[in-house]
Amino acid sequence: MSLRIGIAGLGRLGKRHAEQLARFTPGAQLVAACSPVAAELQWARDALGVTTLHESFDAFVADPALDAVVLVTPTTLHARQTVAALEAGKHVFVEKPLSLDLADCEQVQAVAARYPDRIAMVGFVRRFDPSYAQAKADVDAGAIGRPFLVRSQTCDLNDPEGFFVRFAPTSGGIFMDCSVHDIDLARWMLGNPRATRAFASGTIALHPGLAECGDVDNGLAIVEFEGGARAVFYASRTMAHGHETTTEVIGTAGMLSVGIGAQRDRVVTRDAQGVRHRPVADFFERFGEAFQREMGAFVAACRSGVAPLTLADATEATRIGAAITRSLRSGQVEAV
Amino acid sequence: MSLRIGIAGLGRLGKRHAEQLARFTPGAQLVAACSPVAAELQWARDALGVTTLHESFDAFVADPALDAVVLVTPTTLHARQTVAALEAGKHVFVEKPLSLDLADCEQVQAVAARYPDRIAMVGFVRRFDPSYAQAKADVDAGAIGRPFLVRSQTCDLNDPEGFFVRFAPTSGGIFMDCSVHDIDLARWMLGNPRATRAFASGTIALHPGLAECGDVDNGLAIVEFEGGARAVFYASRTMAHGHETTTEVIGTAGMLSVGIGAQRDRVVTRDAQGVRHRPVADFFERFGEAFQREMGAFVAACRSGVAPLTLADATEATRIGAAITRSLRSGQVEAV
Amino acid sequence: MSLRIGIAGLGRLGKRHAEQLARFTPGAQLVAACSPVAAELQWARDALGVTTLHESFDAFVADPALDAVVLVTPTTLHARQTVAALEAGKHVFVEKPLSLDLADCEQVQAVAARYPDRIAMVGFVRRFDPSYAQAKADVDAGAIGRPFLVRSQTCDLNDPEGFFVRFAPTSGGIFMDCSVHDIDLARWMLGNPRATRAFASGTIALHPGLAECGDVDNGLAIVEFEGGARAVFYASRTMAHGHETTTEVIGTAGMLSVGIGAQRDRVVTRDAQGVRHRPVADFFERFGEAFQREMGAFVAACRSGVAPLTLADATEATRIGAAITRSLRSGQVEAV
Amino acid sequence: MSLRIGIAGLGRLGKRHAEQLARFTPGAQLVAACSPVAAELQWARDALGVTTLHESFDAFVADPALDAVVLVTPTTLHARQTVAALEAGKHVFVEKPLSLDLADCEQVQAVAARYPDRIAMVGFVRRFDPSYAQAKADVDAGAIGRPFLVRSQTCDLNDPEGFFVRFAPTSGGIFMDCSVHDIDLARWMLGNPRATRAFASGTIALHPGLAECGDVDNGLAIVEFEGGARAVFYASRTMAHGHETTTEVIGTAGMLSVGIGAQRDRVVTRDAQGVRHRPVADFFERFGEAFQREMGAFVAACRSGVAPLTLADATEATRIGAAITRSLRSGQVEAV
Repeated sequence: MSLRIGIAGLGRLGKRHAEQLARFTPGAQLVAACSPVAAELQWARDALGVTTLHESFDAFVADPALDAVVLVTPTTLHARQTVAALEAGKHVFVEKPLSLDLADCEQVQAVAARYPDRIAMVGFVRRFDPSYAQAKADVDAGAIGRPFLVRSQTCDLNDPEGFFVRFAPTSGGIFMDCSVHDIDLARWMLGNPRATRAFASGTIALHPGLAECGDVDNGLAIVEFEGGARAVFYASRTMAHGHETTTEVIGTAGMLSVGIGAQRDRVVTRDAQGVRHRPVADFFERFGEAFQREMGAFVAACRSGVAPLTLADATEATRIGAAITRSLRSGQVEAV
Repeated sequence: MSLRIGIAGLGRLGKRHAEQLARFTPGAQLVAACSPVAAELQWARDALGVTTLHESFDAFVADPALDAVVLVTPTTLHARQTVAALEAGKHVFVEKPLSLDLADCEQVQAVAARYPDRIAMVGFVRRFDPSYAQAKADVDAGAIGRPFLVRSQTCDLNDPEGFFVRFAPTSGGIFMDCSVHDIDLARWMLGNPRATRAFASGTIALHPGLAECGDVDNGLAIVEFEGGARAVFYASRTMAHGHETTTEVIGTAGMLSVGIGAQRDRVVTRDAQGVRHRPVADFFERFGEAFQREMGAFVAACRSGVAPLTLADATEATRIGAAITRSLRSGQVEAV
Repeated sequence: MSLRIGIAGLGRLGKRHAEQLARFTPGAQLVAACSPVAAELQWARDALGVTTLHESFDAFVADPALDAVVLVTPTTLHARQTVAALEAGKHVFVEKPLSLDLADCEQVQAVAARYPDRIAMVGFVRRFDPSYAQAKADVDAGAIGRPFLVRSQTCDLNDPEGFFVRFAPTSGGIFMDCSVHDIDLARWMLGNPRATRAFASGTIALHPGLAECGDVDNGLAIVEFEGGARAVFYASRTMAHGHETTTEVIGTAGMLSVGIGAQRDRVVTRDAQGVRHRPVADFFERFGEAFQREMGAFVAACRSGVAPLTLADATEATRIGAAITRSLRSGQVEAV
Repeated sequence: MSLRIGIAGLGRLGKRHAEQLARFTPGAQLVAACSPVAAELQWARDALGVTTLHESFDAFVADPALDAVVLVTPTTLHARQTVAALEAGKHVFVEKPLSLDLADCEQVQAVAARYPDRIAMVGFVRRFDPSYAQAKADVDAGAIGRPFLVRSQTCDLNDPEGFFVRFAPTSGGIFMDCSVHDIDLARWMLGNPRATRAFASGTIALHPGLAECGDVDNGLAIVEFEGGARAVFYASRTMAHGHETTTEVIGTAGMLSVGIGAQRDRVVTRDAQGVRHRPVADFFERFGEAFQREMGAFVAACRSGVAPLTLADATEATRIGAAITRSLRSGQVEAV
């Protein structure tokens, strides 16, 4: 029988998840939606045929018809909604980051530990991208020997409107917002070593409004791990060409790179501008297939009882991201 | 209400279509399957939950519960089954080629003309690949000026077992089997000019068993069109690296290429073997997304009454493919 | 002691060879130049310090101070000047094609046979390009098994002035002018099989003036060889992006490609136009290093007495090119 | 009249410079060589025809027949030999780094200031690579807006013999030895902003012997500049595939990358290993053309009196490299 799922939060990413669940996730049924925005609920009903619509999260999470919930709500709500869902007996998928606050993450972990038969999974979507999955399989198969260095970037097409500037005060900063994926990938590829120290530096290239909240639009960070592994991250909001997410894993017998070139498709144009291809425009375009697989993996996890990634992964990503962010502000090396 | 679809033929490609219809084609319901092979019907029931199972095509096509049928049967059956389905009042999707015989194609067209409210669509799947669709949109937008030359290839990973050798007597030869896609793409990109002449040449590199039926495992062909456009095709069964389908469209102000490099994913490996990537293994891997979109397009066509491609496209592809095949055998230029 | 070399013909390519000889060819001394154009001789004196200047080819070739001559004169003069130089006891480097006329080629070969201690070498410059040389070494080492198919193209940036249109009446047509290099490469890579038949087709995309002399600005040709090998050539005068010379050698265990993408250098630009690189502009830019190595190889051949390629190679290239050109005009398959 | 040049130091790189000067640098004459190693002097005489051979640097630098000297001696000698050469009235080309010691660099600058008609040029060879030169021209032309970030790496093929381990005690460490080029490129591309702070971190992946002298075989560094520009460097001794030197310059309107992929030539191989190309093996292979142009630029500078780069560039590179190296050891952010 299909897993009955409800979704809370129907912004841009929430709608994407809702569509995946309603249309392209065999074994799942999207039966309920929750949003304080009437138009979003109406969309869920009209576009996806969802019949149970909740304005209140409390009512939503208590809905006995639901086996699982997918939380695509503002970051500040993630932790307590995850706790509420677990306590209501639901499996939970929650978008990243679990929380900007390390103590919150740890508290969610503690609650989850009391519900070992409930899945709680954080949306590190890149793990479900076929290329990242292949790279991880290659690393695990020893293709590059012992991995000891990850270089990873998340670079977004510049938004001249600077939407993210208005979002900056609550985003947790560029590293918590963008690099949290790279941090998770680095840990994953390196075999989950413990991070010890972090240093960050950044600059504002195009969006002076970020200065107010101590944020930057281009940031660099180095993270040190026990055992000698290292990672370096780059995050940018100001790319002129598109969205380019890349990761390199360097080992003693080779290296793997993922995503360099940001090809949108297999078309190459030769004309008076040179030899060129279109880059991907945004993370939706880049990770469309990963979003689909991620929902499939969540459904599979609810059935099997085994999650492909743990809340501890989310906690560690927050711990490292927070240290990087502290370093950006202090200008000094920070302990993780 | 969902379109009720039945599928006939559940070989490798038939299973793929069936899965798309059952799981990933919103607006469609796979309600019936037809196969002379009991195990295939059982698979449809067990894996996809299809409840109406037919051994007989006649019973299948007469099933009043069906709005549309998808035919993935042997090529020799395509034409008469398409006619039967149209006469039974069904929309039809039929795999390529419509027929190896030009007269059969024309007859199907004549029948279809009597059922203008029924969709009859042939499976030129590459038109639904995002990269090919983008290239076509670029050509139509004038990005390369006036297109006048297409170079297109279909090259398969060598099968040391030589399965296709056994299939050769009925495949219509390498050009009808592989190049028919390239022929269709060339016509599409060039704006459907009328082909006038064809020349082909080929060689047997690895599979001497093909000689018996006059076939080759590597073939080249040049086709001339009215108005001066030209196309050159390459088909191979013997690639060592994988499946590489490429098309170049050359115009007066630029050129587009699709598929060169055959990247399977976004991973690049650097090691003692050099800097390298995995190629796609076969057309399923290359055109997975196109197969999904193709079924979506068929469902949309049944609803809108407008097909994205016509039986005349299939007839022209057969006409050109047949002339190329004649040239391969005669060694001379043949009129199309 | 240095080889004393004279050069005849100081057009664009002649100047390039003269500079290589004067500046970058250790073991060679450019001591004489010959041209009917006073300004060209003056350039040789002023720019390169050449002191012996001849207006008359007869005086030039008789100059006892010369060990070798480099002929970069109009194609119609190549054959008889090569003969004259051999008879005067000089080593000869002559630009391609040796002659558009097969009988002329054969006559030069007959003369050369009488002077076995004189080097006579034709300018198939691509053999000296590091990439082509590597590809040939790979083929010879068995890297792709038995090579059985070559696809090769010479595509030039469109010249809106259409200089080559005025040159067309004497160029021998697009295949003799451009594809002669591809023909030579195909023979070289395939191990010099004997060509048996040829078919060609072409179109005029941008330069209607070519019609007068039966030439085209885009041409395709298929050549068949004894033993089953095949080649397909593409030549174009109308590229929008630059000069792109590519060759693919396909064998039973792999394939090699040379030159695809036409990168001018190692710079990639990402901006609002996409992700792109500059292509090479013309064959000088593409084959600059090959021109240098070619002169070095000629000097080495004069010293060692062993030429890296023979007049027979030039004769075969002309034989095949002439058959392709006949096919373009007759519209039929032609015997080679 | 040709510039008369002497070379001191005939190790691997010295030999390379000597050959360029003797054979491929029009306007230069290599007339003298200096080395304490008899075999090296003999090579200069036998291979290049150099007739004046010095065992003693003092005699060499005093040789009145010399207009200019090229110093390819051990780093510890660079500064005082440069001073000696300037004081002897010679133009000087000295290999990088000018000195590991900032005070030494400054002293050389002070001496050079007393000889304004003498050229003193440090061997930042990458500036003479055609791709880097094109990138710089693009940046200067505003192609990427205002450049604000440079990412640059120097990664060498692993040497299982670990030759550089023995060299480590005097190399100045990985950053002074390898990254000094990247540091110079960053300053050049960013318009010579003043560096303010540096942080470095590293690891030993394969060569434990480096620990003794506080060096690493893989190092990362971030450098901050006045005005907000940033640079991040990566240096590695342990690549499995070859030598890959890359630089990215990121600006407000685009980005340029140089060298990614490390293609050795234009050959791509498709076989059972995938689709792949050979990488360049070492910096000689990568920068062969740059070494030639560099000597040409030095000769041109001696004639024109204008150097393409200044001693101040070398001093700044050492200043930054030294701060990075201090940070590697202290584990803290260091002022530059």
